[in-house]
Amino acid sequence: MLRTHTCGELRITDVGKEIVLCGWLQKSRDIGTIGFIDLRDRYGITQLSFDEHKNKDVFNQARILGREFVLQISGTVVERTAKNANMATGDIEIQVASVEILNESKTPPFTIEEDTDGGDELRMKFRYLDLRRANVRKNLELRHKVSKFTRQFLDAQNFIEVETPMLIKSTPEGARDFIVPSRLNEGEWYALPQSPQTFKQLLMVSGFDRYYQIVKCFRDEDLRADRQPEFTQIDCEMSFVEQEDILNTFEALIKSLFKEVKNITLDPLPRMSYDHAMKYYGCDKPDTRFDMPFVYLDDLAKGKGFELFDSSESIIAINAKGAANYTRKQLDELTAFVKKPQIGAKGLIYCRVADDGTFKSSVDKFYDQADLQKWADACGAQTNDLILVLCGELNQTRKQMSELRLELGKQLGLRNADTYKALWVIDFPLVEYDEANKRWHAMHHPFTSPKPEDLKYMSTEPQRIRANAYDMVINGVEVGGGSIRIHNKDLQKQMFTLLGFSDEQAQNQFGFLMNAFEYGAPPHGGIAFGFDRLCSLFGGSETIRDYIAFPKNNMGRDVMIDAPSAISDEQRLELGL
Amino acid sequence: MLRTHTCGELRITDVGKEIVLCGWLQKSRDIGTIGFIDLRDRYGITQLSFDEHKNKDVFNQARILGREFVLQISGTVVERTAKNANMATGDIEIQVASVEILNESKTPPFTIEEDTDGGDELRMKFRYLDLRRANVRKNLELRHKVSKFTRQFLDAQNFIEVETPMLIKSTPEGARDFIVPSRLNEGEWYALPQSPQTFKQLLMVSGFDRYYQIVKCFRDEDLRADRQPEFTQIDCEMSFVEQEDILNTFEALIKSLFKEVKNITLDPLPRMSYDHAMKYYGCDKPDTRFDMPFVYLDDLAKGKGFELFDSSESIIAINAKGAANYTRKQLDELTAFVKKPQIGAKGLIYCRVADDGTFKSSVDKFYDQADLQKWADACGAQTNDLILVLCGELNQTRKQMSELRLELGKQLGLRNADTYKALWVIDFPLVEYDEANKRWHAMHHPFTSPKPEDLKYMSTEPQRIRANAYDMVINGVEVGGGSIRIHNKDLQKQMFTLLGFSDEQAQNQFGFLMNAFEYGAPPHGGIAFGFDRLCSLFGGSETIRDYIAFPKNNMGRDVMIDAPSAISDEQRLELGL
Repeated sequence: MLRTHTCGELRITDVGKEIVLCGWLQKSRDIGTIGFIDLRDRYGITQLSFDEHKNKDVFNQARILGREFVLQISGTVVERTAKNANMATGDIEIQVASVEILNESKTPPFTIEEDTDGGDELRMKFRYLDLRRANVRKNLELRHKVSKFTRQFLDAQNFIEVETPMLIKSTPEGARDFIVPSRLNEGEWYALPQSPQTFKQLLMVSGFDRYYQIVKCFRDEDLRADRQPEFTQIDCEMSFVEQEDILNTFEALIKSLFKEVKNITLDPLPRMSYDHAMKYYGCDKPDTRFDMPFVYLDDLAKGKGFELFDSSESIIAINAKGAANYTRKQLDELTAFVKKPQIGAKGLIYCRVADDGTFKSSVDKFYDQADLQKWADACGAQTNDLILVLCGELNQTRKQMSELRLELGKQLGLRNADTYKALWVIDFPLVEYDEANKRWHAMHHPFTSPKPEDLKYMSTEPQRIRANAYDMVINGVEVGGGSIRIHNKDLQKQMFTLLGFSDEQAQNQFGFLMNAFEYGAPPHGGIAFGFDRLCSLFGGSETIRDYIAFPKNNMGRDVMIDAPSAISDEQRLELGL
Repeated sequence: MLRTHTCGELRITDVGKEIVLCGWLQKSRDIGTIGFIDLRDRYGITQLSFDEHKNKDVFNQARILGREFVLQISGTVVERTAKNANMATGDIEIQVASVEILNESKTPPFTIEEDTDGGDELRMKFRYLDLRRANVRKNLELRHKVSKFTRQFLDAQNFIEVETPMLIKSTPEGARDFIVPSRLNEGEWYALPQSPQTFKQLLMVSGFDRYYQIVKCFRDEDLRADRQPEFTQIDCEMSFVEQEDILNTFEALIKSLFKEVKNITLDPLPRMSYDHAMKYYGCDKPDTRFDMPFVYLDDLAKGKGFELFDSSESIIAINAKGAANYTRKQLDELTAFVKKPQIGAKGLIYCRVADDGTFKSSVDKFYDQADLQKWADACGAQTNDLILVLCGELNQTRKQMSELRLELGKQLGLRNADTYKALWVIDFPLVEYDEANKRWHAMHHPFTSPKPEDLKYMSTEPQRIRANAYDMVINGVEVGGGSIRIHNKDLQKQMFTLLGFSDEQAQNQFGFLMNAFEYGAPPHGGIAFGFDRLCSLFGGSETIRDYIAFPKNNMGRDVMIDAPSAISDEQRLELGL
């Protein structure tokens, strides 16, 4: 090794040792005849000192070293006079005897500090320098830790990690595939997997009993801030289980991860039905760090001559506790917020509960104090609370109110990144109707098992069929989801029929799975966690990009290596393109 | 859970317990009024018994169950009268109280037994049934074990697993890339990585210090028996190290794996130079389970009037110890073996050392006993040994003799799959000359560091430059290889120039790496192990396909899912193809 120690490990007990360190020059400064350099590596920072009186050559050499130079230094560990309690190595420094420059560095385009002066784009182009910053590196160390404990947990529970193939078959169902031309089979294409779904089900048919894989998946979607064309899943499947078994197994995994990685003891995960979540939080991934449930005012607010309410399908209120002091300006901003095109509400009605228990609303003309008292009672609003009301078509209003609720939660400090509230959302509908294409879509995927008691609605009211499907939601983020699968080939066929597949299409695309079901498929189910998202949640960030070593931008480009790029004529020719 | 126990865990101490098992019907038989079923799951087999006198309904139900039916049975653990010491559960059986058929099965197209009656092609088509066979499942369990211990070892040594991207940039250098059209960047393509080489080097530039990844890689080559278009590597890189550090670190990994997985204590790995390996074994991955080194007879055998030898560049012998009893027929077969077009020798000369110490050779006409005694002395041949000689152009003869040596090793039982001999091959040449294209090729890859003492040959005799490159070879299989990398941008530029890259080409393809080298790249090096191959070696098999859950055939097809396949016009349109 070119070093005897790392830059993170020397302590007061090492004083007197002759050592060799390697690392990067973080910063340097002179105080008269003493020069100091902070030498950095992955493990920490160690202070080097150069005394002009003791070693003039080395002192002079040290003065001309630039930021990010790679150095190998030898010297003696000495006790510092001015100790730094904020650094693990802060009790000591190195009296340097010799310096070797292992490599020089141009001045980096941005500072290698936690608070850097580099903008997003520049840092992505020089990602290899961005990754030198301690906070970025820590994100990836966290990611490693999460994967390590996940594997430990699942290994201990008899799960076996099996690698499923990356070059598979394109299926038009679901999101768009990335595809790969085959040279040996000209005119034919592989697809990259959107998930190992069918393969893990085949592994259950094979009797593997408990499978997992931490695996790259690919989706060619238009990108948003929290989406990447390639992403990583913790993918799991179990045989001879019911929904309850999956929920218990993976609740234990998540609790164990929180304990190991964050030293947080997570509360037992409540279970909330999809219908409940939609009704009271307006979305299927409610942020339950704060309550603020929806209150339906239809009975109380209609028929009082307020045309807007009277003509609305639904009137929904929330109670922002303690927010009666919101100023006119703040209320205007909230109104502007809900009227943004992405949210689309027509307006916002409010009702303050004053100190003295009286009400002041934006619709005083139509509702007297007694009316508003009823609203307050329905909302559980007391003095100093602020009731906010939206109205319109039921589903739209729910969506709008969900956004408003989250915004208020943020404004009122109820969405602390260090607080974690997890829950299961269960009883999802099996299918939803796609008005545009006049057909039923699988809400989860076509392999999800309906609840046996709802099978009776199959041919008449498919929208009433609930699925044995579940999502794990933490702090308003869907971190995982799964289902009990269909293991019966006839039921699988019915499902494909419901989804508008012809027998031929179903056979062509999923024949191998349906054929497999003819040879003794066990009851099975599973779950997949979005690993990037889980890591960002553990790290308290909202952008998964911060937890990916070499992420792509919103156009799917890696700006560092400049990919994708043109290919050569020779490549085209060989592939018959 | 649908069961209380697995089929592998009940013991004599469980007698009397009421249990529920789930599994597949392995086989069934009746002995008069008692029926037996072997119920199988991943964990083992448990015998079920059905007594007509005790429960006639269940007895009758059991008789009509077919092979591979999925059953849930409940019953009582009882002691067996006829115990089976070969089964972990052989002391007990289950007196079955009730049977539920969880799923039926058609009769499988081949038997689900270790020795199956299914041919290769059929088993690949029904891979999900092939995976039910205990030996195939054990291969994948072994694979899981190897990856688990690899991670444990590397984690403990401060390596951090970092996922590198799968959608990267195509580089014409090296093997052929699989490429992926970008929809968001029409006309541009990603490539799938042949290895994470450049990314792991960038991680070293980033200061990650010790990186590993168990990762899928892709190469669009014409396939051979032991090649797959997608394969898995254990990919590693370290900073501030010299070759010696890498060899020691990964020798320790391999020894630890052998201990943990096979309970075998591997001898310390000898180091053999590339030149030595080529000279004495005719290949750079010698099987050292047996010695049988090449002996060069040029000085002894030329000038005796034997035209074939006299006109040959080189005459190479090996000594097959104890093989003097090879029959004429066996010798003819060996001759036919070396004359196969793939090997291409013109003939084979032999010399037996008889019981009485006399020699009998196929070239007695030219060589008398004294001449042959000299051959024998050179070869260390004694009574009962067989000397085999090939001649011709040096490099060709070495290759041919290498094949003959391996064949003899096999015939003489010297290549036992349970014996493991590992070594390092070091001091590879940096470049080799490609006569066809009149240019130098990197023997390893363009990032490999030359030995500093050989840099003087750079512009004059590049063939003399040795690289800081190394392969780990076990039983004649190259399981891993790597090198110390170039970390100096000027040297990297020189290397690209030597390899015939224009500055523009180098910048276009590897600019991001060369730019990174301008910002303080540390000295670094690494290694990558072929994970599939390593697993097959641990399993004592020569075909990596046996250790891959869903392998492709020699045409790169997955015959189970029938991929690659045609794509839709809509997909073509969206991708601008």
